[in-house]
Amino acid sequence: MAQQERAIATRRKLLVGAAEVFDERGYAAASINEIQARSGVKKGAMYFHFKSKEEIAQGVMASQLELPTEPRSSSASPMQQVIDLTHELAHRLRTDVLFRASIRLTVEQGTFQPHDSNAYDWWLRVFARDLARAQGAGELRAELTPEDVAASVVGSFTGIQMLSHVTCDRRDLHDRLTKWWQQILPGLTTPRTVAGLEPAGSPELELSGTG
Amino acid sequence: MAQQERAIATRRKLLVGAAEVFDERGYAAASINEIQARSGVKKGAMYFHFKSKEEIAQGVMASQLELPTEPRSSSASPMQQVIDLTHELAHRLRTDVLFRASIRLTVEQGTFQPHDSNAYDWWLRVFARDLARAQGAGELRAELTPEDVAASVVGSFTGIQMLSHVTCDRRDLHDRLTKWWQQILPGLTTPRTVAGLEPAGSPELELSGTG
Repeated sequence: MAQQERAIATRRKLLVGAAEVFDERGYAAASINEIQARSGVKKGAMYFHFKSKEEIAQGVMASQLELPTEPRSSSASPMQQVIDLTHELAHRLRTDVLFRASIRLTVEQGTFQPHDSNAYDWWLRVFARDLARAQGAGELRAELTPEDVAASVVGSFTGIQMLSHVTCDRRDLHDRLTKWWQQILPGLTTPRTVAGLEPAGSPELELSGTG
Repeated sequence: MAQQERAIATRRKLLVGAAEVFDERGYAAASINEIQARSGVKKGAMYFHFKSKEEIAQGVMASQLELPTEPRSSSASPMQQVIDLTHELAHRLRTDVLFRASIRLTVEQGTFQPHDSNAYDWWLRVFARDLARAQGAGELRAELTPEDVAASVVGSFTGIQMLSHVTCDRRDLHDRLTKWWQQILPGLTTPRTVAGLEPAGSPELELSGTG
């Protein structure tokens, strides 16, 4: 491997190892020694990438900003793509420890640093962009603004996944999201559009097998 | 004061002093010495009530379960009372340090103890009760179940207040809640009911002066 590729691979191993420890213990109880041991990276290499536990946590938090946010589903409906994105994020929360730790640290960041709204601002922009597409296609009611709906969707998603985490380790998360979309879609879109949407996500997402 | 009254007053002073410190620093950075100094309670009296920082935090978290949850507004519409309760809780988050710290610790509890869903379960029951009343009055669509709507409302409220906290110290919280209700009410209730509801809360709540 070229030197740069090696550095990228090492950084990734550190982030995943740190994510496992943060996911299990939270920020305060995680130790930098355990992160180093878990990631299997030598101490010198670790300090080359991250100077402190706080820097590693910031790296884990920032990793969510590198996720693909372009619609993965082939649905022709932009509103369906918004619904699908929430189910994809839910799936990732259940199966991807780096994303799960990233969200946990974002929620708990007030315990180790002043609040930083970067991650929230990012998701607000992503959802506002997709909801603007839905409005362009006549699927979001004309009297609503994409930014305001994005604020409700990002806020609601954040809280619904927390509630699902605390009450049942996110086992009911897809079901909770499906019911939430069923409840709110009539207010966001037209009766004609609602009839064509899948609140549980497009079938081709194929997430159902994982709950 | 009788002995029992004194004990209740001392406990209250400790909870409020602790809430101020937790609200400013979060759980991890709060020290039991600072809590004692802030509350103005003698050390012996403090340890009579609480054995540890964790016990004090649990007392602060539990304080939200003692709030009055019967509708305070005189609106005859049960659905309006549900809307009003969210604005009352928002007002309390902005003005009542004990409630604010209680919610912060509930959100961050994973950093100092295994998750305990008591507080969430409590609010789920409160909102399910009020939404069942709304359904009884024909204001919640018959095809929805109060428990499922309560799960969406409690989850969404939790996340929307977090987002408002991180992005602008909750200055836009009433406005965010108002827009959220405007977006979701058409899906939860009938067109006839929507027309009579105030998404910003009943005028007699008189919360507007505080933002």
